[in-house]
Amino acid sequence: MNLEKILKFISRQKVAVLGSVDELGYPNQKAMLAPRKIERQMVFYFSTNTCSIRVRQYRINPKASLYFFHKGLIRYEGVMFTGEIEILEDYAIKKALWQRGDRIFYKQGITDPDYCILKFTAISGRYYCDLKSESFSCQE
Amino acid sequence: MNLEKILKFISRQKVAVLGSVDELGYPNQKAMLAPRKIERQMVFYFSTNTCSIRVRQYRINPKASLYFFHKGLIRYEGVMFTGEIEILEDYAIKKALWQRGDRIFYKQGITDPDYCILKFTAISGRYYCDLKSESFSCQE
Repeated sequence: MNLEKILKFISRQKVAVLGSVDELGYPNQKAMLAPRKIERQMVFYFSTNTCSIRVRQYRINPKASLYFFHKGLIRYEGVMFTGEIEILEDYAIKKALWQRGDRIFYKQGITDPDYCILKFTAISGRYYCDLKSESFSCQE
Repeated sequence: MNLEKILKFISRQKVAVLGSVDELGYPNQKAMLAPRKIERQMVFYFSTNTCSIRVRQYRINPKASLYFFHKGLIRYEGVMFTGEIEILEDYAIKKALWQRGDRIFYKQGITDPDYCILKFTAISGRYYCDLKSESFSCQE
């Protein structure tokens, strides 16, 4: 699998859909703005509210999925990763990923306790293009 | 919660994202074309390939989520349901939901064993608009 091609596809998408598993065992989904940072080997960082339902779910069950897709009338392209979420609340990472305009969401700024970072580390991926798909590993 | 408002929002979306839980307990996601049929009390019907990964997962674990969203630069609106999937393979329902052009996906037509219907019955829902959200029940 060509990871460069996948990263290029991901960089064109404005939305990522995060999946979690709730307390009753049902999958949950939520659209997020594009990741603030992407590291090689498919590690993605998002900002979110510490008090959100997702954060509560990931503290109990870190299993997650991350989905980027583009669906036209006929053509469909997508990549879905499964992996695990860590919730980061230390100042250094919160400062590094802070963006102008974030005070709309986090009124107290970088130290706002309701501002945290979700770090998603992919374990495996599946790439879809039209009617074909291919699985790949994200671990070295 | 105003279900009419939610149905109107859903009818404007071209894509629905279906969530499942895989054999290892990870959430999975897949974009689907808009539902072929929607019944009151939030029952949704989709067509899919019987041999697909999703169908295999739902046979083992019917717990599912269904997500419709629209995310602009600032405004975000979405509705996520949790519920259960049934896989329908009887001729009557396959015929009722068959659409012109489906032979691209199911070469043998209505009786193609690789053509089946996913029936999603919502148990509960959560409606998001901008920074607010509200949960609601879908069961009478």
